[in-house]
Amino acid sequence: MKKNVLIIGAGGVAQVAAFKVAMHNDVLGDIHIASRTLSKCQAIVAGILEKRALKRPGILAAHQLDAMDVEATKALIRQTKSQIVINVGSAFLNMSVLRACMDTGAAYIDTAIHEDPEKVCEPPPWYGNYEWKHREECERKGVTAVLGAGFDPGVVNAYAALAARHYFDRVDSIDIIDVNAGNHGRYFATNFDPEINFREFTGTVWSWQQGQWTANKMFEVQRTDDLPVVGSRTTYLTGHDEVHSLSANLDVPDIRFWMGFGEHYINVFTVLNKLGLLSEKPVVTAEGIEVVPLKVVKAVLPDPMSLAPDYTGKTFIGDLVKGMRDGVETELLVYNISDHEAAYAETNSQAISYTAGVPAAAAAILIAKGEWDCHRMANVEELPAVPFLDLLGRMGLPTRVRDADGDRAFDPAEFREPRGKAARVGGVS
Amino acid sequence: MKKNVLIIGAGGVAQVAAFKVAMHNDVLGDIHIASRTLSKCQAIVAGILEKRALKRPGILAAHQLDAMDVEATKALIRQTKSQIVINVGSAFLNMSVLRACMDTGAAYIDTAIHEDPEKVCEPPPWYGNYEWKHREECERKGVTAVLGAGFDPGVVNAYAALAARHYFDRVDSIDIIDVNAGNHGRYFATNFDPEINFREFTGTVWSWQQGQWTANKMFEVQRTDDLPVVGSRTTYLTGHDEVHSLSANLDVPDIRFWMGFGEHYINVFTVLNKLGLLSEKPVVTAEGIEVVPLKVVKAVLPDPMSLAPDYTGKTFIGDLVKGMRDGVETELLVYNISDHEAAYAETNSQAISYTAGVPAAAAAILIAKGEWDCHRMANVEELPAVPFLDLLGRMGLPTRVRDADGDRAFDPAEFREPRGKAARVGGVS
Repeated sequence: MKKNVLIIGAGGVAQVAAFKVAMHNDVLGDIHIASRTLSKCQAIVAGILEKRALKRPGILAAHQLDAMDVEATKALIRQTKSQIVINVGSAFLNMSVLRACMDTGAAYIDTAIHEDPEKVCEPPPWYGNYEWKHREECERKGVTAVLGAGFDPGVVNAYAALAARHYFDRVDSIDIIDVNAGNHGRYFATNFDPEINFREFTGTVWSWQQGQWTANKMFEVQRTDDLPVVGSRTTYLTGHDEVHSLSANLDVPDIRFWMGFGEHYINVFTVLNKLGLLSEKPVVTAEGIEVVPLKVVKAVLPDPMSLAPDYTGKTFIGDLVKGMRDGVETELLVYNISDHEAAYAETNSQAISYTAGVPAAAAAILIAKGEWDCHRMANVEELPAVPFLDLLGRMGLPTRVRDADGDRAFDPAEFREPRGKAARVGGVS
Repeated sequence: MKKNVLIIGAGGVAQVAAFKVAMHNDVLGDIHIASRTLSKCQAIVAGILEKRALKRPGILAAHQLDAMDVEATKALIRQTKSQIVINVGSAFLNMSVLRACMDTGAAYIDTAIHEDPEKVCEPPPWYGNYEWKHREECERKGVTAVLGAGFDPGVVNAYAALAARHYFDRVDSIDIIDVNAGNHGRYFATNFDPEINFREFTGTVWSWQQGQWTANKMFEVQRTDDLPVVGSRTTYLTGHDEVHSLSANLDVPDIRFWMGFGEHYINVFTVLNKLGLLSEKPVVTAEGIEVVPLKVVKAVLPDPMSLAPDYTGKTFIGDLVKGMRDGVETELLVYNISDHEAAYAETNSQAISYTAGVPAAAAAILIAKGEWDCHRMANVEELPAVPFLDLLGRMGLPTRVRDADGDRAFDPAEFREPRGKAARVGGVS
């Protein structure tokens, strides 16, 4: 049993995680929110108090912290007696926060892969470049570190594990599909940090096909699916974190990630990218100012958190899994639909942040209760999927399944028993 | 008779002006080229020597100069005994270079309106905001200052004056049409300084219609014409310098400027503009660096001078003039066709720079010879048009005319005599 949560970061995802941790402070204990900008942490605290989101009276405090500073982070973990750290700050912070957790024994949770600000799209598998180098140390010290516990990566990894271990006898392909069918009403905006958002699309698109890494360019490969609620949608083969762990942890030959983009997004992205304005390499102006173009683009775009009040529509994120079940070629779609307005009403954030923040809080609860307190480094698909999805359903992220028997709410009872070959390859069931 | 020319600036237009001044150094005397970056001036000198463009042996020297520094500019004018200054540097320099000329007595020539870097699109007439405030001082001191002596503004003003004074009895409308039908082979580039280029299109589009200033937005109004050589072309109502002097100096109710843009240019421009990346107002990055977005866009775009070697195709710039002649409603098109490859072969610059730089050198020759040495401030339409167009024809910018009698080379003899009411309104004939 672990308790007291330190949330690092103060963007939209951090806000959602903080709300959801507050709603479960009977289990999770004290709540501390820390980021570079104290006022952002204070705004989240104020929002939680205003919405009376704390389940019971308890500590909810804001802190100023440069989480690149490992010693400062360790000091704050110790000072706040935090046994669980939810790192939902910039993707550049993972290694320093993980280091602080390994040194203090606190459990570590993040929602996205570590990135080096100077590098875009490193060679696969991405987790092998940074996180997995610390597997041995976590194991030796008994430190729990759950990687990629947002929605994608995160819940979609659990969907994949559910399909591989509890539904199919053999999985042939997993296609993860992410569609934001919402509307923020602006000319153009990204739904989270523009810098991280664009960096996803400027490098090589790595996918796992026929059991090996395959390289494509962004917007080179597309598919169109008729999806529940959001309808017919075109998505594009995109490089994404979860492909890099699922390909190592599940015995599945084809694992791909597809993201939906409208023509307008693609046009704006293409213009900026072709001109070199999405580059992470500094340029020098005629006046001698050295600046990274991508950081200037970020400065002119709307703050993603500012979009939430006006956001309408829904998100679809799911796994389309194909394989053999009882000797028959079978297709299973496991998915979630979230609503931007409902997310805002509950947590002051839109559904993109909501779908990423709720799972991080759920992971904290499962660690606190011991079910996910694995005392080692694990990606989500290595951990029990059924209790995670069951808990998420009660926390605002219901799972649905669609197969030959129809479209229905996820019922834990239906997926209770492990089955299939994939269950025995990589990870625990 | 004035002689010795100081050219300020070292971009494409300056290079063309320098080549053309060199080709007439028997009339113009010593040639000095000065800009912030000495190496650029030296490169122009080297190009002229390599192409053996000097008509006769003479002084051709490069100088480092910050032309915002009036005293330094005056010192260089005096030191080089320059009696004519061709200002083809940044549009932000006009007022300081004009001041240096008024203080030293040197004749002043420029090719574009003065701009304040902090302001985009000031109220009309633009010349009234800066240049014309010095009319009285020029008159009093007898300083010759020829404003806007490039192609547009410049030659198109002479075309308008030619039509109004030597062809029509009454002019009803002047539509200036500028089409670059060339291809630079890059994804996107501007043909001159991106900062100045984009600033033309981000503000209000001012045109002179029915005898008053009319405001539109960029790309709001378009026309399509079947033009000589370049064929059917769509152009867009655009704010431009010459409309601001022609409306004051000619008694013509409708004066408009139209610029040709391809769909690709418009798309890139629209994306950058809508995102705020063409703003002249500084933004601050998350890391605290203050920078003007437009200057970052300039830094990532190709250097306009780098386009010249690969540029193919032609430019069309002309005046479509309508009015009464001998009691009949008549239409006259006065125009020039220039070729990018021919311009590069002769002056190491493409045709956009060529069409702007040659007229500035021609203006210097007419001042040197006395024909344009008017001892006051004048826009091109106030000065004799026929000798200017005659000289330009011999310097590589032939004028053609098209009316009911057909399409033919401009013949000075046909336009010798002044006629028409417009000849008596504003300016000299």
